[in-house]
Amino acid sequence: MNIVIMAGGSGTRFWPMSRGRRPKQLLNIVGGKPMIWETYQRVKDLAPDERIILVIGQEHEEETQQLFDETGVRILVEPMGRNTAPCIGLAAQYVDYCGNEDPLIILPADHYIAHPDIFRQALSAAANLAAQGGIVTLGIVPTRPETGYGYIHRDKPVAPESNAYGVRGFVEKPQLAVAEEYLVSGEFYWNAGIFAATAGTLLREFSIHMPLFAQGLKRLSSSFDTSEFSSALAKLYEETEKISFDYAIMEETSQSVYVIPCQCGWSDVGSWYSLYEVRRGREQDEDENVKDGESLLLDCQGSFVVSRGGRWVAALGLRKVLVVDTEDALLVADLERSQEIKEVTAYLEAKELKELL
Amino acid sequence: MNIVIMAGGSGTRFWPMSRGRRPKQLLNIVGGKPMIWETYQRVKDLAPDERIILVIGQEHEEETQQLFDETGVRILVEPMGRNTAPCIGLAAQYVDYCGNEDPLIILPADHYIAHPDIFRQALSAAANLAAQGGIVTLGIVPTRPETGYGYIHRDKPVAPESNAYGVRGFVEKPQLAVAEEYLVSGEFYWNAGIFAATAGTLLREFSIHMPLFAQGLKRLSSSFDTSEFSSALAKLYEETEKISFDYAIMEETSQSVYVIPCQCGWSDVGSWYSLYEVRRGREQDEDENVKDGESLLLDCQGSFVVSRGGRWVAALGLRKVLVVDTEDALLVADLERSQEIKEVTAYLEAKELKELL
Repeated sequence: MNIVIMAGGSGTRFWPMSRGRRPKQLLNIVGGKPMIWETYQRVKDLAPDERIILVIGQEHEEETQQLFDETGVRILVEPMGRNTAPCIGLAAQYVDYCGNEDPLIILPADHYIAHPDIFRQALSAAANLAAQGGIVTLGIVPTRPETGYGYIHRDKPVAPESNAYGVRGFVEKPQLAVAEEYLVSGEFYWNAGIFAATAGTLLREFSIHMPLFAQGLKRLSSSFDTSEFSSALAKLYEETEKISFDYAIMEETSQSVYVIPCQCGWSDVGSWYSLYEVRRGREQDEDENVKDGESLLLDCQGSFVVSRGGRWVAALGLRKVLVVDTEDALLVADLERSQEIKEVTAYLEAKELKELL
Repeated sequence: MNIVIMAGGSGTRFWPMSRGRRPKQLLNIVGGKPMIWETYQRVKDLAPDERIILVIGQEHEEETQQLFDETGVRILVEPMGRNTAPCIGLAAQYVDYCGNEDPLIILPADHYIAHPDIFRQALSAAANLAAQGGIVTLGIVPTRPETGYGYIHRDKPVAPESNAYGVRGFVEKPQLAVAEEYLVSGEFYWNAGIFAATAGTLLREFSIHMPLFAQGLKRLSSSFDTSEFSSALAKLYEETEKISFDYAIMEETSQSVYVIPCQCGWSDVGSWYSLYEVRRGREQDEDENVKDGESLLLDCQGSFVVSRGGRWVAALGLRKVLVVDTEDALLVADLERSQEIKEVTAYLEAKELKELL
């Protein structure tokens, strides 16, 4: 199979550690290495390096190149972020250009998987099914009535050897009561944005649902691996709208769509709290604290102390508090409200404090 | 009158801002200037500069000299800390050496006074009374059943023109129930360690209750303002025990002792919480937060954010949290438990992290 690792994000949800030049996928916030490297390590046994494609933003090219210097992975550089649909289209066109008919597994660079073996089994099953046509998604078995994710509503079982189901539909982020029903029903999965399909299947879908973009991709094919590639891609991306693969393709397609349930301890690590939960499972102390870097925690509970600024940190009597110390900025927050960090970054933007963004 | 400002402390209660080389009295934590300077400003209209004596520790000599460079105050340097009794004895001997028979007002360098006019009136009254003999203490009218201070139990009124009382006795830090009785009775005052007496009165007391030390002081008198002074004082201090003036003299004396009640908005600023309370009265925002330095507080309440490390600080959703950011160390604590910082400094001592102390 081919593996496409999407690393185009430039989120600020891990401010002050994540910055424009250093998005989440380049941070070593869980495990010792940057998330994109951990993602690569997780899947590298499924395909040879030259079939592993990283799609990254150009502002992160140098750092990513260095990180993967000793591997044989392919790196495709996007000139600007256009969400997942153009990213997947580009990867599919590249695989097609390589003359490779094996399915693509497409996955984000910045997720965490507690049980990689189970995850790899599901990816293999997804690839096997996708080889026969259609688009396969991984469905994360929900563990709570989460209102922050989209859901996949399964249909009847198909292809019992791969434990797959048909898909009745995709649902946007639900209200809590609805999410609770979903959890109880057992028929709904979290949509983690992990897909499998062949390049042929994907390009056919793009030609139907994003025909101009698909034509542009076809023209681009002649410039892959040439010096014209980056300017040709920049021209195409400039004319292309920002749109997600879910919205552009998955919700529109008339092809077969399947879901393979997966209980792999998945997390999108979408906030400091979410990171805390992931790391708590790996390394919490007896008071449910997690510490990262040099610090002293005295009678703290449920707190997360990140010391990356070279300073010595003392925490005393904290309850569910997040501390993130970096070289030039410090965040102290109610850990359970860490998703509100966007208000801090919005303030920094309004004040044009660009060096802190 | 003469004014003696005692600045021998080397406390670590304001860690990480206070350090061995930079004790509380040299910190600009309330008002814009170091506390010792604010104390000087508060009393300087009561006496000419040459009658204002600072008693300081030798490790703080350079910084204090610089601070008071353009004043005419006298600075006496203690070779080591010996608590308040030797400090007051030394100052009394110096005033005696100067041939000055006016009373000494003795006060700590690191207290805060919300109402300096009322404070100065009380000091003047204390000096007037002390000129007639005896030792006069200021009694801070309690505003809460504080268990962390010693109390002065007043006797009958004397000298109605100075609003003074006799003293029945000094009581150590009481239990809460006792402190509550004290508060209700109206007969007890906080002992703020502020005294008035003539040099003659004081030296007589020392000769009775610390006779060896008093003899040493007398011998020292010939070396004041000579190059032998500091080695002579070092020799004397080496032989002298650490003892407080309250314990050595006030609780032992058979002289007349008076107390003058004072409602001057006094605080000993003995902890971060105490400093927060002082500053809250001056500068709190609508959510009872106090901020010092560059920071953004989003939906915080009752929190105290000190940013002195040159970093930009964001605080989000905090409730009664203390944040103190300095160049090389960061403290985040439950604001109401800030007195437990001694556990942090004890840890640093145990780990021999001397650069942080």
